[in-house]
Amino acid sequence: MEKYAIIVAGGSGTRFGAAMPKQFLPLAGLPVLMHTVRKFARCGAQVVLVLPRAQQELWRELCAEHGFEVECEVVSGGGSRFESVKNGLRAVASLAGDHTAGCMVAVHDGVRPLVSPQVIERAYADAAIHGSAVPVVAVTDSIRHIEPDGSSRAMRRDELVAVQTPQTFALDALLAAYNVELSPLFTDDASVMEAAGHSIHLIEGNHDNIKITHPGDLAIAENILKNATTC
Amino acid sequence: MEKYAIIVAGGSGTRFGAAMPKQFLPLAGLPVLMHTVRKFARCGAQVVLVLPRAQQELWRELCAEHGFEVECEVVSGGGSRFESVKNGLRAVASLAGDHTAGCMVAVHDGVRPLVSPQVIERAYADAAIHGSAVPVVAVTDSIRHIEPDGSSRAMRRDELVAVQTPQTFALDALLAAYNVELSPLFTDDASVMEAAGHSIHLIEGNHDNIKITHPGDLAIAENILKNATTC
Repeated sequence: MEKYAIIVAGGSGTRFGAAMPKQFLPLAGLPVLMHTVRKFARCGAQVVLVLPRAQQELWRELCAEHGFEVECEVVSGGGSRFESVKNGLRAVASLAGDHTAGCMVAVHDGVRPLVSPQVIERAYADAAIHGSAVPVVAVTDSIRHIEPDGSSRAMRRDELVAVQTPQTFALDALLAAYNVELSPLFTDDASVMEAAGHSIHLIEGNHDNIKITHPGDLAIAENILKNATTC
Repeated sequence: MEKYAIIVAGGSGTRFGAAMPKQFLPLAGLPVLMHTVRKFARCGAQVVLVLPRAQQELWRELCAEHGFEVECEVVSGGGSRFESVKNGLRAVASLAGDHTAGCMVAVHDGVRPLVSPQVIERAYADAAIHGSAVPVVAVTDSIRHIEPDGSSRAMRRDELVAVQTPQTFALDALLAAYNVELSPLFTDDASVMEAAGHSIHLIEGNHDNIKITHPGDLAIAENILKNATTC
């Protein structure tokens, strides 16, 4: 099975309140994004990295500085996550050439460096069987649903799951699904596939696979790495 | 308006992986729980602290050590959050005596020390008008709903909110609502009130009002405190 990974690192880091985009901040001495890229490379995937054009020079400098050994194709991000994934997909299709059948592609957030190798392996294997594999974890907050009249009702927490990445699909199917206009309902790749009529196969994610979004998240990630044996 | 706060600190800290229950770990030099209790006392609330019996001696020692100035009634926790809140409510009812009408009671997680004074004030004020006030924040994860047949579907994120505390209610109504058997659907106080037929009034929570549950959360909280002016 040919494995591809589209790593989306579109954020400008403004939400993070740091001068440096968050995907470049050091985690255990290495930029966050290098941890992420390496995880997929070590699982045998060819990596396409989607990065804003303005950050590509910095990425190359950091790769030289850290002697980063993974070769990956860098393509420019779009104005939205949807456009960025589309750009990544074009690059994957071009790498795959005429041999897209049987290829699997994982779409992963650049700022989720703590995905476990087991989840990555499982995602590719299950996508090869079911056409899709999307890691989910239990929801820990109480969640309420806002009704059309503005009132709200408690939702059953045991009927909800929170979606992570890598969201992994048969390449042909994902290429076809992304051949649509952007909708506000597309919050992730699973929702794009669903809009194209596919059912989504869920797998168990690893709880530690957090998204580094807020300033304290890096401290959490450092802590998890310190206590981890497999990350 | 007479204001009461039930601060529930039932956790044993085992999930946290620390020898000390997480509510006693130091945040900016002061145990987490003292930050929480002080927030409500400063808003003019009489505080009832629900604490496992085995931790009450430690709490008294820590209060002496830190010269903690807030007087609060300490009652024992139950086998579940529901039972703990019930115990707290009994203590509040006894403090209020014959004058429960017009009293408001906030139920708050002991491990949410970063609730803003504005949210507390707003919760009491809105509960006095609407009978309830429950702070919510936007949901950041993509959420999927598990259907009875085991399939799943993407939920519209803009129709979901994540519930925080302090969940604040007219005392009489909350006392009556808690006069039921525990149900697995009770994930918070709003769901108990809802089961008793009340509609729930939502207010905007503060994003920083995180629950200190995982090891890295303390580092996040330290960081938020460092950058905060109002916490």
